[in-house]
Amino acid sequence: MTAEIWDVIIVGAGLSGLSAAHLLRKRNAKLKILILEGKDRVGGRTVSTDIPAANGVDRWDFGGQWVGSTQTHIFELIKELGLETFAQFNIGKKVHHMGGPGAKVRTYRTSIPALSPMVLMDLAQLLWKMNRLCATVCVQDPCKTPNAVELDSMTLHSYIKQHVWTAELKEEMGVCSRSVFGLEPSQMSFLFFLMYAAAAGGVLPLLESTPGSAQEFKIKGGTQQLSQCLAERVGWKNVRLSSAVTAIWQDAEWARVTTSTNTFFGRAVIVTCPPHLAAKIHYHPALPSQRGFLTQNMPVGHMIKFIITYRTAFWKEKGLSGEIVAGSSSGCPFCVTFDATSPSGNAALVGFISAQQASQWSSKEDWAKEDYSGGCPVNVMAPGLLTYYHPSLRKPCGRIHWAGTETATLWCGYMSGAVQAGQRAALEVLAELYPLTLTQEEQEAVQHSLTVKDPVEQTPTFQLTYFSTTKAIVIAPLAIGAVLFLAQNQNARLMVKTYLANAFF
Amino acid sequence: MTAEIWDVIIVGAGLSGLSAAHLLRKRNAKLKILILEGKDRVGGRTVSTDIPAANGVDRWDFGGQWVGSTQTHIFELIKELGLETFAQFNIGKKVHHMGGPGAKVRTYRTSIPALSPMVLMDLAQLLWKMNRLCATVCVQDPCKTPNAVELDSMTLHSYIKQHVWTAELKEEMGVCSRSVFGLEPSQMSFLFFLMYAAAAGGVLPLLESTPGSAQEFKIKGGTQQLSQCLAERVGWKNVRLSSAVTAIWQDAEWARVTTSTNTFFGRAVIVTCPPHLAAKIHYHPALPSQRGFLTQNMPVGHMIKFIITYRTAFWKEKGLSGEIVAGSSSGCPFCVTFDATSPSGNAALVGFISAQQASQWSSKEDWAKEDYSGGCPVNVMAPGLLTYYHPSLRKPCGRIHWAGTETATLWCGYMSGAVQAGQRAALEVLAELYPLTLTQEEQEAVQHSLTVKDPVEQTPTFQLTYFSTTKAIVIAPLAIGAVLFLAQNQNARLMVKTYLANAFF
Repeated sequence: MTAEIWDVIIVGAGLSGLSAAHLLRKRNAKLKILILEGKDRVGGRTVSTDIPAANGVDRWDFGGQWVGSTQTHIFELIKELGLETFAQFNIGKKVHHMGGPGAKVRTYRTSIPALSPMVLMDLAQLLWKMNRLCATVCVQDPCKTPNAVELDSMTLHSYIKQHVWTAELKEEMGVCSRSVFGLEPSQMSFLFFLMYAAAAGGVLPLLESTPGSAQEFKIKGGTQQLSQCLAERVGWKNVRLSSAVTAIWQDAEWARVTTSTNTFFGRAVIVTCPPHLAAKIHYHPALPSQRGFLTQNMPVGHMIKFIITYRTAFWKEKGLSGEIVAGSSSGCPFCVTFDATSPSGNAALVGFISAQQASQWSSKEDWAKEDYSGGCPVNVMAPGLLTYYHPSLRKPCGRIHWAGTETATLWCGYMSGAVQAGQRAALEVLAELYPLTLTQEEQEAVQHSLTVKDPVEQTPTFQLTYFSTTKAIVIAPLAIGAVLFLAQNQNARLMVKTYLANAFF
Repeated sequence: MTAEIWDVIIVGAGLSGLSAAHLLRKRNAKLKILILEGKDRVGGRTVSTDIPAANGVDRWDFGGQWVGSTQTHIFELIKELGLETFAQFNIGKKVHHMGGPGAKVRTYRTSIPALSPMVLMDLAQLLWKMNRLCATVCVQDPCKTPNAVELDSMTLHSYIKQHVWTAELKEEMGVCSRSVFGLEPSQMSFLFFLMYAAAAGGVLPLLESTPGSAQEFKIKGGTQQLSQCLAERVGWKNVRLSSAVTAIWQDAEWARVTTSTNTFFGRAVIVTCPPHLAAKIHYHPALPSQRGFLTQNMPVGHMIKFIITYRTAFWKEKGLSGEIVAGSSSGCPFCVTFDATSPSGNAALVGFISAQQASQWSSKEDWAKEDYSGGCPVNVMAPGLLTYYHPSLRKPCGRIHWAGTETATLWCGYMSGAVQAGQRAALEVLAELYPLTLTQEEQEAVQHSLTVKDPVEQTPTFQLTYFSTTKAIVIAPLAIGAVLFLAQNQNARLMVKTYLANAFF
């Protein structure tokens, strides 16, 4: 065991952690920054790998691959690092298979699927309704959304069931949910879905490869380069791979971060891993119970990505774009494919097996599971969470700050969101340690982000006092509250003992 | 570091773990059984504590307290251990406050709340519908429930919204959800709610203190005695307190269980802690990804229990039972109270602050959190979980077997369920290690419990082959499947590489 002292310790060498480190370094070159990563590589949920292709070997992204021109944070980073993008190929007919294994396989050319006029009308009214709701969502503080509790109390499935008239569109929406989140519409809060769409500028930008949409461009050489270039700039010596963080202890002076072999002391910590993995770290003192409830309610998606290389892009010769959209009723194991031909011309298709289908497929590989990812592409929120526990998502806990794409307010869940979140967390740390390195505007943004209130204000009449952390004694006010209901408190011995919150029933 | 060898290692010295140990010991007195417990006491989510009372000091339960006569597993255990029960006092008028802070506080005497005829009719139709659905639920294998996917795709809130006509009953159902689960109706799957009620014999048994219901009896001297007596019988020397398990490694010969200071080798392991805590243990090889998705989707309740002792039970003198039911709109911080006068006559009331209200209150004690409980009373399931991931809840993973009340099929979530689950896991272990100690009937029960199928059968046409655990290569069949859609596979070089399930998007 060794003990080292650092200014800022970052947990996770993905885009979010490395973006945070990069910004910290730019503002203060003297900062001692350490990045701890559980995997044996940088990049988190981005990874680019060489596989055999028509002309020898070529590189593809097996993690996050697309960027869109409205994703300003990632685009600025791409520019800064001198990387190049190229457009997602989407010319030609797309293939569409819905309505059962026997249903006709249709083709279409626009971004509007080959649906009957009735289903198209249905789609139009649904998008109109959803986008209208999206426009009312407060991404920064979703509880402020009108009718938030009601929207958060239903699943996306329940909303679809209520507002979609045709079975075809219901199936179509299932494909959308699976391809965007890796989860069935039943597995997420409708308000979460709206927030996610609002952070991306609407529902359609999540689904399309048109200008401004999520699937617009790819990065030449792969997206993992972003993290590799950032690690280069931050200094590889500050990045420790295969160093999974097991515990974070805090006291008045230091945060102490431990791995299985080392202990590191830091003045601030930025945790960037997905919420369900951040929850596996042992924290002392314990995190607020709200944070625990939050991370327990953020299921991560289940998505299997496959890339198939071909001798030639025969689909292009046939006038097809390579895009296939298949409903779960079609018996097809994947939900969507796209052309994935490389910039150097090696033909390939990329596709996704997702959600329920991924669960079935993965039962064949039961014991295979990469550590320190635990799911993809993103954690969503179960119903009833945003309205009660959302502030804990970004609220720092002592010296610990939270990043990762799940905590972003612009393109949450995307690479751009990872960058935004990392930069926001870096600014929070600077605001605490070196406030003079921030502009007035940045200071205000940090202040604003930190003051999001708990969703429902505490009933002002009651006040709890605690004498010990685990066995707290609640004095008179609560007893009085209780006894008022019996209108008879003159003989009460006001002795109340309560095991709090997370103890017992 | 020391290394010790045991036959069976049990993680958790609550009712489930100790019941498992007790049964194992009874069947084979020579078995070397080790119980590892993170807390510094036995009992898990049961704890009985002395507090000041009218006549000096008396003991109350701050964890699970009630048992019902239909809870056969716990009742047999109480009898075997020679403990005594006494009835929950429920004579006299109950207080009912719903419909906003200004609404009239009503009183009633029966188990039917003081509601207007219209609301009572509404309640009757709702209970009729819910109980009819309950009767169709297959608790052992909820996917077999008719219409399972649809029932699992909505929250309890959505069902209530659709099927309850009056605002009063909607508020009433909120109180029910908070007082039973510590969660809002928006936070759980409706199918999960039905399964939970079915495991208890219906909806009303969850709510009432009448014969056969969950709140019928209490145990003289407190419920923690059950675990203490069991530890006595199993032998205190086999129970290691303050020994939190951090990792479980399995190979062909052994399961290796580690705490921060020790390593133990066992032939079988029974993990009894609540699902979200079992998920914090590091497993190698990794658990099936389905298991991970399951535990991520089982939020635990949030409930604060308080006990107030009084000089006299003045409510009884006034003809009141001590029961108060208060809706969230009433401004009252708790949802329900009951008389808690001790067998020796010390007057007290017990009450619960729950779900959303608990979240507000606990924000005042942000850094207080007992380790190794992490919530109460029970983990529920978010929508879309039962139908896809339920089998992972009880399915053993190699040498690891799962217990804890969440895995019970009778009175799941209650102390009785903890005992049932512990005994079931013990039988599974015996079936593996010493099959001759089981009766024919027990062997069949174990067999039946282990053969619950995955909810949706694998599409038979496709087959995956894996060459490595983390980077698997998918050969021809998948490619053929994909390519069939393009009807043009003669020039495909069938090279597919996929990062599986939990890796990337």
